Formats: sequence, structure tokens, C-alpha cells
Amino acid sequence: MKILLADAIFTDGTIYRNHGIVFDKTIIEVSSNDELRSRYGAQCVELGEGSVILPGLVNAHVHLEFSANRTTLTYGEFMPWLSSVIASRDELINECDDECTTRAVEMMLSNGITAFGAVSSYGFDLDPCFKASQKVVYFNELIGSDPAMADALYANFQERLFASQELKRSGFYPSIAIHSPYSVHRILIQKALKHAKEKDLRVTAHFMESPAEREWLDTDSGPFRPFFENFLKQTRAANTAEEFLSYFKEIPTLFTHAVQASHDELSVIAQNGHSIIHCPISNRLLGNGVLDLKPLEDKNIPLLCGTDGLSSNYTLDLFEEMKIALFMHPHDDLLSLSQKLWRGVTSLAAAALKLNCGKIMSGYDADILVMRVNYPINGQLPLHLINQKGIIESIYIEGERVK
Amino acid sequence: MKILLADAIFTDGTIYRNHGIVFDKTIIEVSSNDELRSRYGAQCVELGEGSVILPGLVNAHVHLEFSANRTTLTYGEFMPWLSSVIASRDELINECDDECTTRAVEMMLSNGITAFGAVSSYGFDLDPCFKASQKVVYFNELIGSDPAMADALYANFQERLFASQELKRSGFYPSIAIHSPYSVHRILIQKALKHAKEKDLRVTAHFMESPAEREWLDTDSGPFRPFFENFLKQTRAANTAEEFLSYFKEIPTLFTHAVQASHDELSVIAQNGHSIIHCPISNRLLGNGVLDLKPLEDKNIPLLCGTDGLSSNYTLDLFEEMKIALFMHPHDDLLSLSQKLWRGVTSLAAAALKLNCGKIMSGYDADILVMRVNYPINGQLPLHLINQKGIIESIYIEGERVK
Repeated sequence: MKILLADAIFTDGTIYRNHGIVFDKTIIEVSSNDELRSRYGAQCVELGEGSVILPGLVNAHVHLEFSANRTTLTYGEFMPWLSSVIASRDELINECDDECTTRAVEMMLSNGITAFGAVSSYGFDLDPCFKASQKVVYFNELIGSDPAMADALYANFQERLFASQELKRSGFYPSIAIHSPYSVHRILIQKALKHAKEKDLRVTAHFMESPAEREWLDTDSGPFRPFFENFLKQTRAANTAEEFLSYFKEIPTLFTHAVQASHDELSVIAQNGHSIIHCPISNRLLGNGVLDLKPLEDKNIPLLCGTDGLSSNYTLDLFEEMKIALFMHPHDDLLSLSQKLWRGVTSLAAAALKLNCGKIMSGYDADILVMRVNYPINGQLPLHLINQKGIIESIYIEGERVK
Repeated sequence: MKILLADAIFTDGTIYRNHGIVFDKTIIEVSSNDELRSRYGAQCVELGEGSVILPGLVNAHVHLEFSANRTTLTYGEFMPWLSSVIASRDELINECDDECTTRAVEMMLSNGITAFGAVSSYGFDLDPCFKASQKVVYFNELIGSDPAMADALYANFQERLFASQELKRSGFYPSIAIHSPYSVHRILIQKALKHAKEKDLRVTAHFMESPAEREWLDTDSGPFRPFFENFLKQTRAANTAEEFLSYFKEIPTLFTHAVQASHDELSVIAQNGHSIIHCPISNRLLGNGVLDLKPLEDKNIPLLCGTDGLSSNYTLDLFEEMKIALFMHPHDDLLSLSQKLWRGVTSLAAAALKLNCGKIMSGYDADILVMRVNYPINGQLPLHLINQKGIIESIYIEGERVK
């Protein structure tokens, strides 16, 4: 059992000054420092001035297999980026061996990310994810819109899923990703989701990332048309957005991006208990626009915040992602948005991924950051922690110190 | 004479691969590495792969006297921020002794800022600015809207100006700042600007920072009204925006913020050869909105980029400021905006401050950064340098190595 007394605990929107935490694998108690001192005496570790205890951060959406990218991919607009991905895919994938993937996993840990949802296209990141210190929701991704290839693609997907299911450790959750409405055949989606429902697997999908996707799904036209004609001899989108969302009925899903989603689509997302993962840096670098946060708030859709992968980001750091979000939404109230973003990388992200973490509260897993700030703590701490990050002094996952 | 051969030189919108530079106090020549090797042989210093030579950065607008702030001031909206400044001003100013100011100056240097425009309200930053390694345009600020206090305020301003003019060194330029349209009496402005014109001094001013300023200047109402009534017994704005701008006719001025400026005001700014300093981080943290870049481009107004001070920023780093600008203008073309921002912290900023730097070109002062990037250099370098900053290996100011 460990007892840490801090200058502040910040969890789920509230700052508790002069509070401490008692934990082993899970959190046993959160109380005032005075109370804990009187009960536990010398067992207490005094963290002192400027210490802040936070829940470990939860990165709901990351692609690790493209972690070799630094300047290979073309930024600015979605279609040139996608073309550059296709042109350099083999090279980038080959360059990202286990060591490269592990560096990305460790980059996340050093930035306080104690749980992540990894979207795996090939399964090449399976071993580093299994060996990671973090909680990992390992999303095996299903992709393929060509009916002629359906069986082979599903078999490959199943093989990867089964391989991940054979690996057992606490905090490792084999799961399912459906790539996107434009890239997966309905038969495949329905088959995979039936399996997810039967086995109670977690599910994620990309949805309405780019203007090009909107145009292609709505009208079978736009810059995606030559792309599909050239690569796959397709002249019609694999699904409409409406059809696509309908498959996920009764399966609460983490939809990534949704920048171009319509109000009707957001209503469907709300009604079905889905959540949305906001990746502001990726959205900007790929020219996809800015997610409008207002309708999400109006419809009570949980807003998570993710880093996406190094194919569309310069780092894997939710502090940086939150900071960028503050500036990409310059008309939203600064403090309220800070609080929203904090929930989106802690309690709400953990809930959407069905993880027992993301809150400093008795009964939750002891996934904990101890940070040190060199400035006076006040009511604007949620904002200051984003802009003036401070030092992550130690990290605990399920009570074990991992940093 | 020094000769540096680099992987790339990036200056004023152009990337020169495999080029080098010959300089002493000023830049003598920029040529291909092969050419320089053949002429100078062993005198050449080979910087090798990933080396990038850039002009030193020019921070057109910084307040140093509030550098003690970390979390004292209230962020989110302009008026609560201003109230917090007034409440904590004495404490913050007292906390920022020469050591504190020098730390801020060194923070700028370590971030590659080799020239800056310091807006000085009290003259307390004079000595550290004079002793700085950088080029300094030292803007003595005139403030005061109360006619009864006019003579005393002008005398104080003059005293500070004269004190700065007594200090002589290469690269130190005593200059004039007019605080803002709402805070300076017209008689004082005209007197100071007459002096600036006679002595050919550089001039800067804040202009149209907040919605509150817009409302007060246009209609003598809004949140500034109780502020002026309570503090200064004033019920009318000191100037209209139009009057204010008219005083600066024939004096090319650096106007800071202009977020709330109208198209007509921007036309006046364009016609008079003024420039605009964009401080995106400060604008966001104080809730002032986002500068619309389009009309500036349409009207050919030079766009500079500044950090403002630590009273409304978490760092003094133009790389950070450029990065934030990329994300605060998410609908602008990513690469073009990167190029615009680079010009705004180098060539255009130097030109507006009448400094002979900001370009890697023969005849310009040898104010030079040598950076090292750990990724392949390509046409998107201006963007990558902002997002993946790299290491500043060495800094030269007027040919002297200062880092």
C-alpha cells in the first residue's frame, strides 16, 4: 500500500488542494492530507509544494505502425497526404520494426499516457503493444471494399484478431476497428460487428474525416472518385454515411474525427451511445477542417481527444494535443474547454474504452501521474497544466511504478 | 571571416540545398557548397547532414517587465485579465528584477531570437535590454489619457526616452511606443510623434486588441466604460480609432494585434506603410479573437509575428508562436501560411524595425542560426521546422558567436 500526499489532486473537473491518495493495485482512498497524516503517520510520502496528482492519460486513438514517418508524408490536404501514404506505405511500414514501435509506446508513456487504443492495420505492432507497460485496447482493423476480395480480407482480419486474443495479460484488450465507411464492404462490417457483439469486444471506426469523404459518400464524386476508380475499379461508395452508422446500432463505438459529420449523423451517434475522438493536430495537418464542438455538447456526445499517429502528428502527447485544441477552438471559453479536454483524455476516454481508470477515486485502478509544477496552483490549474506542462515525476499503472 | 557549409539554407521563402555562407560582421556571400569548397578549401566548416542555416528570428513585440508572471494573471477574457494586471501590477513588477528580465532575454536567445522590440512601460528593463546580446529596439511607452496629468506623464516618458538614448551600443535603438487609442491623450500622442518624426525614431502602438476596445472607441460603452469611470473618471474614449490612426500619417508604425480592426482601418494602415504584429497566443489567452489574415494579404500589409510578453504567454518562442498560428488559422493553406509566418519573424519583421538583418543574403548583418534536424529535408521544410523544431546548435549576431 502506498500513500502520497500532494499539493493538489486534479481529477474529473475538480481540484482538491492538500489532498492525498492511498492505493495498491486500485485506489483505496482519497482524503485530505491532514486526515491521512493523522491516520497513517510516517507511512505517508509528502510530495510537497507544486506536486499534482492526476489520473494517467488515456489516448483513445493512435496508429503505431506508421511511427517511422518524420517528413515522408505530404501535409496540407487529405488526398495528397493519402497518395503519399500509398506511395510510401511499404517503406514506412518496413522501417517501423519493433524497436521503432516501442519508441512510440515509450514516447506516450513519458508524456503521461498510461492507456491507449492502438489501431492496427497489419498486426505488426502486436508484440510491442503486448509488451507495453500501459493498458492497451488493441483494435485489429478491418479494411476492404472489394467484394471479390471479401473472404480473403476477412480471413486476414480474423487471423490478426485471433493472434491478439491468444496473448493474455492484465490490461490488454483485443478489439475491433472498422476502417471507415468508404473503405469497408457492408458484408464485412456486419460480420465483424456481429462477432464484436457476441464476444463483447470494443469497437472503433474512422468517420467523416475529410471533405473528400463527405463528397464521395454523399454523391459518389469528388477527389475520392479517381482514387477508387484507379485503385479499385469502383465508381460508387461502399456505403452511405447513414447505412454505415446503422450497422453500429447497439454497439457503443468510438468514432474518430467526425469533422465533416452532419447534425443528423451526430444525432444518430448520440442516440446510440457512441463517442467521438477528436484529433485536432491530425485534422489540421491533413487539411480536414475543425470539429465543431457545440453540437457534441448539445447532444451530450462524449468528446475524447486522441493523438492519431505519427503519420499525421509530430508527437504522441496529449498535453500537446490539448494545447493545440485550445488554440484551434479560439472562440470557445478557455477554462471550460480546458476542463472538457481533460475529461476527454481521462474519465470519458477510459469510460468509452471500458477501462477502470481515468479518475482519482476509490475503486478505480491506480493509474496515476505525479507532476511537479513550478508555479502557484490556483483555480486556473487545468489551463496552466496544458500550457505550462510541468514535469512528470513518476507514473504508476495499477499501482506499480513504471517511471 | 567564417565559412559554413550547410545541408540547407532557408531564407525569405526559399530553400537552397547544399549551400553555404561566408561572413564576418555582415554576410559576404551565399553560394553552393561546391563553389565555396573549390574557392576556400580547408577554411570551410562542413556542418553536414540535417544542418539548416536560417536568419536569426526577430520578435517584433515583447513586454519584459511582466516576466515574473506564471499563474498570477487571469486568462480567458480581456477585462478580467486587465483587472488582474492592475491588481497584481506592483507585485509582478517588483518581482521582476534585472535577473528575471535577463532570464526572459536569454529565453528568447535560446529560442533563436536575435533581435526584439521591447515595449517598456517603466524603463525597469532598460539595463538588461542594453546588456542583451541581441539587437534591441527599445520602445519607451507613452501612456495616459487624463489631461490633468498630461505634463507629468510626458515628462516621465521623456525621462525614460532620454535615459535610453544615453546608452550607446551597436544594435540598440531607443524608440517610442504609444500605448493604445484608448489610453493616451491626443496631445501627448501628437507631441511624441512629432518628436519621433524629427529624430527619425521607430514607433509602435497597440491597436484594436479586444472587443471591449472596439466597443469603447466606437460607442463609449461596454466593459471599458466602468473601468474608465472608476479609475479615471472618464466617460468618453480618449480617441476614436480614425483619429488615432490619423496621427501616424507618414510615420510607418508597427501596430500590435489589430484583431478587431475594421476593413477601413486596415486600408488606412496599408496606405501609410504601417505593419501589423500578430500575437496569436496572447490573443487566445486573453479571449480577443483571431486576426483575419485575408484582408492583410489583400491590402499588402506586412504581417509580423510576435510573442507579446509573459503576462499573456507561457513562453517567449517564435517557433511556438508560429506553430500556434498554424493551428489558430486552420483554414489557411498550411504551406503558404508557414512561409508567411517565417517572413513575419525574419525579413518582414527586420524591415519594419529598420534592422539590417532577417535575410541570409550578402550585405545583411550576420545574424544567423545553425539548426540541426533529425529528419530528411524536403520542400515542406518550412512547415517541418515549425512542428519539429530541431536543435539550435549555434547562434551568431553580427558575426559573433553568442551560443
